Amino acid sequence: MNKLKTRGQLVVISGPSGCGKDTVVKEVLKTNKDTWLSVSCTSRAPRPKEVDGKDYYFLTKEEFIEKIDKGNFLEFAEYAGNYYGTPKDVIEEKLEAGIDVILVIEIQGALKIKEKLDDTIFIFILPPSMRELKKRLDGRNTETKEAMFKRFQSAYQEINTVNKYNYVVINDEVEEACKKVNAILISERSRVDRIEETFLNSLEEEIHEILVELN
Amino acid sequence: MNKLKTRGQLVVISGPSGCGKDTVVKEVLKTNKDTWLSVSCTSRAPRPKEVDGKDYYFLTKEEFIEKIDKGNFLEFAEYAGNYYGTPKDVIEEKLEAGIDVILVIEIQGALKIKEKLDDTIFIFILPPSMRELKKRLDGRNTETKEAMFKRFQSAYQEINTVNKYNYVVINDEVEEACKKVNAILISERSRVDRIEETFLNSLEEEIHEILVELN
Repeated sequence: MNKLKTRGQLVVISGPSGCGKDTVVKEVLKTNKDTWLSVSCTSRAPRPKEVDGKDYYFLTKEEFIEKIDKGNFLEFAEYAGNYYGTPKDVIEEKLEAGIDVILVIEIQGALKIKEKLDDTIFIFILPPSMRELKKRLDGRNTETKEAMFKRFQSAYQEINTVNKYNYVVINDEVEEACKKVNAILISERSRVDRIEETFLNSLEEEIHEILVELN
Repeated sequence: MNKLKTRGQLVVISGPSGCGKDTVVKEVLKTNKDTWLSVSCTSRAPRPKEVDGKDYYFLTKEEFIEKIDKGNFLEFAEYAGNYYGTPKDVIEEKLEAGIDVILVIEIQGALKIKEKLDDTIFIFILPPSMRELKKRLDGRNTETKEAMFKRFQSAYQEINTVNKYNYVVINDEVEEACKKVNAILISERSRVDRIEETFLNSLEEEIHEILVELN
């Protein structure tokens, strides 16, 4: 019986870079078969090891602009001369099939989506401490001091937008954080405003019939 | 580290009689050690097999009225000359200890609590179909036709208050319903308005220090 909206949910996940959101999302995809990770489009050239259709859909600038004109993006933005965008069609297809679609996007994109689709679930992932994040990055030793400075500057700004989100998950341990995200996805499906009117109506009709029989 | 409000959550569970809410709650208590079922007080006499402190706290009418005067109830009501109420003190103690407190109460009591404590989680449990509920009750064969009529009449009214609740859980299978309730409890703890201001402040302070060091 079709009791609850079986349509999938759109889930936006953001968080300061280095907070481990990609690892958490990977774990969610592994443990929850009803989820799918949306892949963004970009007009920038692929970097070594990047795979088309996995890391990004790589388009030419012309192709990207054509898609913009056709209204094919949920949101898009330009950074440093390159376009980045969230394609609409595949997402709609997955949602229609009852799959929860996860978008890992930065805050500006998330806010644009929030304007358009208010029933999207917005999850912000935070590290348990910034010191720990710093230590992790120092350990990797892959970043210039300048890049590091910029990174923490952005993190500061991002933390100030937390209240635009619905949930905050602290990534203490990946498995715990994943369990929380999965709980949010289950819980959101039980929210009262997602229950189908037709289901409540069918219950009421049944009661009506039963009352007539009993009378 | 104290990152999220560790205070427990107050959870009100309602649903038409016969929907199986007590069985679901029993399963939640069994599978989730951080939950506790609140026991109501009543001034009515115990029925055979009812245990004081388990089914109800049995009080004399005078004791009950004294507690009312002292403001010891979260909500109370009078039915057929007897008082029924939700005692405040034990609940507060449990919440303070980080335990989620479950109240299984009918809709009138739930609405009274909602007026006072808006951050309570309200869950409504529904049977997958009223026909099935009727069949189950017919099978038990313990009810007069009149009692049955009244029961379904109440159910009809109750279903019309569903939109006062936050969540609707359909009790198709007890284990599934229990899983959903547990997911709601986890998910609610991650809601953005439950995150501690002090935690966000500590992250911001850390970033500030890191930026000073990097500069």
